[in-house]
Amino acid sequence: MAEKAGAVVLVSGGMDSAVCAAIAARDYQPAAMHVSYGQRTEARERRAFTEICDRLGIATRMVIRDESLGKIGGSALTDTSIAVPEVQDVESAIGSKVPVTYVPFRNAHLLAAAVSWAEVLGAKKVLIGAVEQDSSGYPDCRPEFYRAYNEVVRTGTSAADITIETPLIALRKAEIVRRGVELGAPLDLTWSCYSREDVACGVCESCVLRKRAFADAGVRDPVPYAQAVLH
Amino acid sequence: MAEKAGAVVLVSGGMDSAVCAAIAARDYQPAAMHVSYGQRTEARERRAFTEICDRLGIATRMVIRDESLGKIGGSALTDTSIAVPEVQDVESAIGSKVPVTYVPFRNAHLLAAAVSWAEVLGAKKVLIGAVEQDSSGYPDCRPEFYRAYNEVVRTGTSAADITIETPLIALRKAEIVRRGVELGAPLDLTWSCYSREDVACGVCESCVLRKRAFADAGVRDPVPYAQAVLH
Repeated sequence: MAEKAGAVVLVSGGMDSAVCAAIAARDYQPAAMHVSYGQRTEARERRAFTEICDRLGIATRMVIRDESLGKIGGSALTDTSIAVPEVQDVESAIGSKVPVTYVPFRNAHLLAAAVSWAEVLGAKKVLIGAVEQDSSGYPDCRPEFYRAYNEVVRTGTSAADITIETPLIALRKAEIVRRGVELGAPLDLTWSCYSREDVACGVCESCVLRKRAFADAGVRDPVPYAQAVLH
Repeated sequence: MAEKAGAVVLVSGGMDSAVCAAIAARDYQPAAMHVSYGQRTEARERRAFTEICDRLGIATRMVIRDESLGKIGGSALTDTSIAVPEVQDVESAIGSKVPVTYVPFRNAHLLAAAVSWAEVLGAKKVLIGAVEQDSSGYPDCRPEFYRAYNEVVRTGTSAADITIETPLIALRKAEIVRRGVELGAPLDLTWSCYSREDVACGVCESCVLRKRAFADAGVRDPVPYAQAVLH
């Protein structure tokens, strides 16, 4: 089961992670990890993960359940008593304060699991498709977080030579779409919507940012939407 | 449920965590978190956690299951195909290389969950009873790991003012026993053994370090052992 892998790539099932997985599949023989954490669209994202790995030929996979984030709550994604906001335009999706869809310190959970696995597999890289530009302003998507995390990995592992890579962090979302098309990343299999699992809602932050990205890139978004964004 | 808490304290159920919890109970109104991660003595440690919290009057508690470490394996504590070593003396327990009982990057998992919870509770401190001195040489028990992790917390959280504290990290194990006795920490309720749940084996690294600590402190170890260490 623990085959040789050059990298562990975290794949949520969204468009950024699919492009990141395509980069990993091109550059390394990666193992792919997916984390279910009680988010509203958990089942749909897990399906996207499986289909993306199938398409990219990534055979070594691990799906894990992080029970803590659901129990801790504090986010519209994990606590059904907090509504997922509908946003009217991209400006309100990018807003200057941390939105209620922020899952507290989530990416630290994902990285911890991926680094543990990398250590056991002997993989030297952990890839994550975090994006700072055109994003919702989550603190755990900023470059300084990943720089700091690399120091944690250096000091806290037995291997000490694993590094986190964030190949998309400085890209605009439209550039990520273009990069995905160039790489043949399976954008058609991805799921970005925060609130629905049948068709994408089109009005959550994630849908609004995604739609604008495809529009700016001049690429048709292959995912079906329930309604158009009003802008 | 999410009552006001001044700190989140991680409590494994071992002697160091019980002393750390007693410090937290003295200085803060803490919430206590326990993580089961598929370790051999999971049920016994969870019982110790509950009893320690009861004794210290810590009402706000969370027990979570981290499924990933068991799936990832790579440690004698989580993989039953790797034997827990029996050590002959304290010197071989402290050894210079990372032992097979190291659970890869485990403390990064524990801290991620505790920091997420602190963020939601509005707690400003996360306490963990990590010990560098007299320990088995786990990389994620060293001060530099916690210094680096504090930078991750500063950059990766919305609150940005949570800090990790390691009140025991520089103490010898015998000093921890003495500190525990002074504080009235519930050392009698703790469980340190890596391999057994009925009585402590007395011959794993953890038992050997614990027995020496009590002996050096001149305090009777209240926990029953299966056999004496040969030295």
